[in-house]
Amino acid sequence: MNSKIIGVGNCIPSETITNLYFDKHVFLDDKGILLKDDNFSLSEKLKKITGIEERRYASGDQVTSDLGLIAAQAAIEDSKIDPETLDYIIFAHNFGDVRFGTVQSDMVPSLAARIKHSLKIKNNFCVAYDVIFGCPGWIEGIIQANAFIKSGIAKRCLVIGAETLSRVVDIHDRDSMIYADGAGAVILEGNSDDDSGIKAHLSSSHTYKEKDFLYFGKSYNGDRCSDTRYIKMDGRKIYEFALLHVPEAMKQCLDSSGYSIHQLNKIIIHQANEKMDEAIVERFYRLYNEVVPPDIMPMVIQKLGNSSVATIPSLLTMILKGELQQHEIKNGDIVLFASVGAGMNINAFVYKF
Amino acid sequence: MNSKIIGVGNCIPSETITNLYFDKHVFLDDKGILLKDDNFSLSEKLKKITGIEERRYASGDQVTSDLGLIAAQAAIEDSKIDPETLDYIIFAHNFGDVRFGTVQSDMVPSLAARIKHSLKIKNNFCVAYDVIFGCPGWIEGIIQANAFIKSGIAKRCLVIGAETLSRVVDIHDRDSMIYADGAGAVILEGNSDDDSGIKAHLSSSHTYKEKDFLYFGKSYNGDRCSDTRYIKMDGRKIYEFALLHVPEAMKQCLDSSGYSIHQLNKIIIHQANEKMDEAIVERFYRLYNEVVPPDIMPMVIQKLGNSSVATIPSLLTMILKGELQQHEIKNGDIVLFASVGAGMNINAFVYKF
Repeated sequence: MNSKIIGVGNCIPSETITNLYFDKHVFLDDKGILLKDDNFSLSEKLKKITGIEERRYASGDQVTSDLGLIAAQAAIEDSKIDPETLDYIIFAHNFGDVRFGTVQSDMVPSLAARIKHSLKIKNNFCVAYDVIFGCPGWIEGIIQANAFIKSGIAKRCLVIGAETLSRVVDIHDRDSMIYADGAGAVILEGNSDDDSGIKAHLSSSHTYKEKDFLYFGKSYNGDRCSDTRYIKMDGRKIYEFALLHVPEAMKQCLDSSGYSIHQLNKIIIHQANEKMDEAIVERFYRLYNEVVPPDIMPMVIQKLGNSSVATIPSLLTMILKGELQQHEIKNGDIVLFASVGAGMNINAFVYKF
Repeated sequence: MNSKIIGVGNCIPSETITNLYFDKHVFLDDKGILLKDDNFSLSEKLKKITGIEERRYASGDQVTSDLGLIAAQAAIEDSKIDPETLDYIIFAHNFGDVRFGTVQSDMVPSLAARIKHSLKIKNNFCVAYDVIFGCPGWIEGIIQANAFIKSGIAKRCLVIGAETLSRVVDIHDRDSMIYADGAGAVILEGNSDDDSGIKAHLSSSHTYKEKDFLYFGKSYNGDRCSDTRYIKMDGRKIYEFALLHVPEAMKQCLDSSGYSIHQLNKIIIHQANEKMDEAIVERFYRLYNEVVPPDIMPMVIQKLGNSSVATIPSLLTMILKGELQQHEIKNGDIVLFASVGAGMNINAFVYKF
């Protein structure tokens, strides 16, 4: 029994946020001191490192589960399945539904339950739950769905990743320019028609020293409500951590699939930071004494920013729908998916299309 | 390969909250009108239905993951395993860490990652994630751990359920007297030493009409901040729903295990409401044309209240540790676990000790 992707969908939120949006923001350092550079220079510097020129935000009347629903509906339409045949709806996120202008997370009922309700599914044995695993949550949902399929308790699973990071940013933190909103979804089905499907996977949680590299912390502006927390990261530590551990994890996953580095057609990596992702892939190839082939790694962070759990399924959808001119995935192609994020968690899977 | 419980632990928070605690609370109905009964009568009425005389709250300096850690440490000690040998840490909750006096949920990093960090586990391949599935989240974590064991990706899993409902109650809602804090944890191991272990399981999500039976809603006091939400329930609808669906789900699970109703030694059910739980078990036996045997269902809600995901692993620990005089579980006993909660989700599993 192989676990196969039979449908994909995404939601690219409608509001395009250019760097001009941040023009009047007062950016402070972690001590609350005004940054010396003007905001234009800060955004240009950020663009050089992360690649981000624009990002997308959900509209004020949307929450995370609304974006997830749009992606889920697209994946169901793409797969042409009857949603009543789904055994699981797995929803990866990290902040629940946070309404515009508020600070509370709402996850009662779970976001997966909201999706199932909106899809009007009557089959009570379609189990709907949420998974919290940092940015790698969507890949982890895929790995869990695969385990359910392998263990015989599921045949078809809808795995959604959606996030509205715009609702949890500290406007005084320049890192706020990195975060974005989005959603992606995939339908995974167990069948034995051919040898396509998930070939290997790997998950890890580095918590001994790395627990607080990504965290929920106070505003850099000490005058703001000290009880309100925002998404915060120690960018330098994350960069070093990712370069040290992600290439090795990717290699371990690819090697366990039995495919060689030369058989690899594409790497779909969490859109966290362009320079970091390039450095990860370079080190990954260096582990095989190889140079990075052209067009191995599609990047859409330039226009979409970092939407956490949503980046990978959203990007995969764009490729399979032919929306990226220079990238395609053909039948038989071997693709390595990889992610890294809060925990710090790293995961990966090898897929034969 | 059977999935077996090899260690249990719980955390009964130190603060005992008697009904006197609510003496000065101003209880309103959902229209904001002052309830006619005085608070003593209200608490006496509540006691008659739910059984709750007292409940436990975490101390002001604790959050949900702190309770979970205490339970996890106890389960590890009980099992005598080296925590480095854990393949998964699965943490079921529904509100994240909510600090005393604040309203935000903190789940970055995941609560499971916090536990792993505090346990000082260095094994990066011990995967730590959170599951959101309403009150049945802990049983769902057990079902997921079982799937990982069956599919060969795990051998030992720590499954924690912890919640601090005291942090999300509307003090103007008399239902606030139901909710409590607590934690429980179990270590599940795959081995083939004998035929004990999980024999059958069942999960369902009823979302078509039932999505908002348990929800995050506004205070009954319209003068309070309209942006802040609290745990809310439609008690009557939940009662009717539970009586209609839970006995049938329990029967389906027991029947699929191959054991007869006469072989059943104990039912460990989510401590939601004493009268409701008694009615569920009565209907369950009626489905077999049987009457409820004495001492089949331990209840500790009288002194501990409803602590959501924590009630079942916490109660199981009390029985196995010999803390309930009238209840024991012996080797070879067949026990049915069942839960119902936000989603609305129902799940169950049959276990041979």
